Amino acid sequence: MTNQLTQKVLDTCAALACCTEISGQITRPYLCPSALQVHEQLRGWAAALGMTTRVDAVGNLRSRLESKTPNAPTLYLGSHLDTVPNAGAYDGILGVVLGYALVEALAGQDLPYSIEVLGFSEEEGVRYGVSFIGSRALIGTADDMLALQDAGGASVREAILNFGLHPDHLREAEAEDSALGYLEIHIEQGPVLQDLGVSLGVVSAIVGQDRLNLQFVGRASHAGTTPMHLRRDALAAAARFMVAAEDLARETAGLVATIGMIEALPGAGNIVPGEVTCSLDIRHARDDMRAACLEKLLAQAKQEAEARNVVLNVIPKMAESATPMHPRFRQLLHDSAADLNLPHPELVSGAGHDAQIMAQKMPAAMLFVRSPNALSHHPDEMVNTADVGDALSVGLRFLERLAAEARAEAK
Amino acid sequence: MTNQLTQKVLDTCAALACCTEISGQITRPYLCPSALQVHEQLRGWAAALGMTTRVDAVGNLRSRLESKTPNAPTLYLGSHLDTVPNAGAYDGILGVVLGYALVEALAGQDLPYSIEVLGFSEEEGVRYGVSFIGSRALIGTADDMLALQDAGGASVREAILNFGLHPDHLREAEAEDSALGYLEIHIEQGPVLQDLGVSLGVVSAIVGQDRLNLQFVGRASHAGTTPMHLRRDALAAAARFMVAAEDLARETAGLVATIGMIEALPGAGNIVPGEVTCSLDIRHARDDMRAACLEKLLAQAKQEAEARNVVLNVIPKMAESATPMHPRFRQLLHDSAADLNLPHPELVSGAGHDAQIMAQKMPAAMLFVRSPNALSHHPDEMVNTADVGDALSVGLRFLERLAAEARAEAK
Repeated sequence: MTNQLTQKVLDTCAALACCTEISGQITRPYLCPSALQVHEQLRGWAAALGMTTRVDAVGNLRSRLESKTPNAPTLYLGSHLDTVPNAGAYDGILGVVLGYALVEALAGQDLPYSIEVLGFSEEEGVRYGVSFIGSRALIGTADDMLALQDAGGASVREAILNFGLHPDHLREAEAEDSALGYLEIHIEQGPVLQDLGVSLGVVSAIVGQDRLNLQFVGRASHAGTTPMHLRRDALAAAARFMVAAEDLARETAGLVATIGMIEALPGAGNIVPGEVTCSLDIRHARDDMRAACLEKLLAQAKQEAEARNVVLNVIPKMAESATPMHPRFRQLLHDSAADLNLPHPELVSGAGHDAQIMAQKMPAAMLFVRSPNALSHHPDEMVNTADVGDALSVGLRFLERLAAEARAEAK
Repeated sequence: MTNQLTQKVLDTCAALACCTEISGQITRPYLCPSALQVHEQLRGWAAALGMTTRVDAVGNLRSRLESKTPNAPTLYLGSHLDTVPNAGAYDGILGVVLGYALVEALAGQDLPYSIEVLGFSEEEGVRYGVSFIGSRALIGTADDMLALQDAGGASVREAILNFGLHPDHLREAEAEDSALGYLEIHIEQGPVLQDLGVSLGVVSAIVGQDRLNLQFVGRASHAGTTPMHLRRDALAAAARFMVAAEDLARETAGLVATIGMIEALPGAGNIVPGEVTCSLDIRHARDDMRAACLEKLLAQAKQEAEARNVVLNVIPKMAESATPMHPRFRQLLHDSAADLNLPHPELVSGAGHDAQIMAQKMPAAMLFVRSPNALSHHPDEMVNTADVGDALSVGLRFLERLAAEARAEAK
């Protein structure tokens, strides 16, 4: 059964990859017509499984399998259905499809909890520059998003109305207060599991992150006629900062620090740069650690700038707290993998996920599936068939263990 | 007399600044109509001094004061009359104008050598991307330049013909084989004399230089999901190289090393850079020292790249040898300044000058005049009036000392 169901998961991901706004690519931003095609396909599968399906006020697809137990709480399963431009076929979608596959794997077995498979309408933040509009609706914080405008000037509110939905129904999109929790299966989007040679990993936490720009302002001068001791070289100061960032991240377990953008002005080979702007992206699973590292790095940047008579301006762009995954759910994932004799290393999620939003209201956990070439947000993004099979097996075992726990508690 | 003549030099520089191709700027590329206006003004001054003036086959303005001594050799004095776009009023021009002023300062005194004041037509390399077309004609190497084309497709040959000159007369542009030497007075274009608090400096050598681009090719990856030890960060490698370049230049007397241009791709704050291209401009007065430093830096760049599984490609763009100034002429400048109780530190020229071309055929020396704000190739470029007076006095003393030496030798 598992092999056939694994193939059905992959076939469904392939079929959904054809729902796109730009032919030849997978490009499916928030509340676009191709999202309706995705919904239609998944509705069919849900109906065949005896699930009831609705689309909530922000466009999330929600299919429920009701428990026969009176007042049973709900376990939420899923991920997101939107994509970045020219995306791969698995980021987000895999976790939603696996939700339906897990219900199919139950083969009609009744559980002491209801299951709701969630296909979030918006996670990537492409259309409105803000992520997680879909999952925010479930924790009751999507109202703040309604006034945001896309590049064409259309607000979230207008987009919702154009999609045939209504913002007045936002309250009905919220998750139930007695929810059992949320499990999200997602491709890793990185090289850790591939490097370890394992199919799956249990996420310990979703990192917190700071993003900022550093502007170094010195003075442009002639590369030949300005001796080293009379320079105010903005790029020389920035280079020391970049080295400090790499050094600190290498010596601090779990820290990543990245300078991804740099611009040096005036930008001619024979002129000492007078002004440099570069980015800093710093992430760690512990907020106190991240804050301490950021403080240390900015102090070093300031010191290197001052040593060159260069002025440093720091422009914060974004700060997000870390989200530890729920200990009991993490343990359930470990135990489920152990039941199947599968390795189950823990790893940090360096990227944001809907699970960090859901964790604000209920126990949340994530299971990562190996990314064989570590490509993310790229058309060549891939998964191994056997790894998807492992995810399905561990997911099913998770449902069974959770059911056993619930039954034990009920006694 | 000196004060009046100093003012005349400054007034002439101001008047010549009005000869421009773009009104409101000083922009005078090679063989443009405004060069004719410059020639006309200086011809008038030369005639009043009893000098004969011609324009040679590449457009250099050449005014001669003949010695009464039979078969007297020629001392060449001057600099260039062309400018970069939106230039200052002194770069090049000051040295030419001071040539005429020095003849005026002689006040009819006969010397045992003839003087030829040179106003080179092309030094900046703006129109044809190659510098020193003017002075190359004097050492007989301008022929190689004739086929070069400007942005509009006009060759040097065509530009010469359009200016009313003829390339067939190139031989007549060459300097005489028995030339006494060449003296060029030029603004420093850097902060060294200003930092020392002195008006003038004697150039020990014009630096040699290498210019190259370094391309670091790693792999772009997600800034959150790629742990430090699995990155192939092209910018991290480049940053180490930039630090190594600054360190080496700081610890090596007379070395300057500059990274003026850097580009990191794909250039997003949340993506580890997969490819970086940056420039290296490295200069020193000794070629062996420069070569050794370049070799060391490239080895360090390669090592830092390899440590990150990053490929380094080195693309040479330009290499020029250093030119020491002539020892006897340098000494004459020192002695002349000492006669006047003026400080006369030696300094290296970090920029190229016509003197490095002339040095291939005759003794050549340069006297630098302080740049009070160190601005070069900029409309705010400036000189102090008193410093120009000092240059005039030292230049005159140089002419007198050279005459005394020539007379002593003749005895």
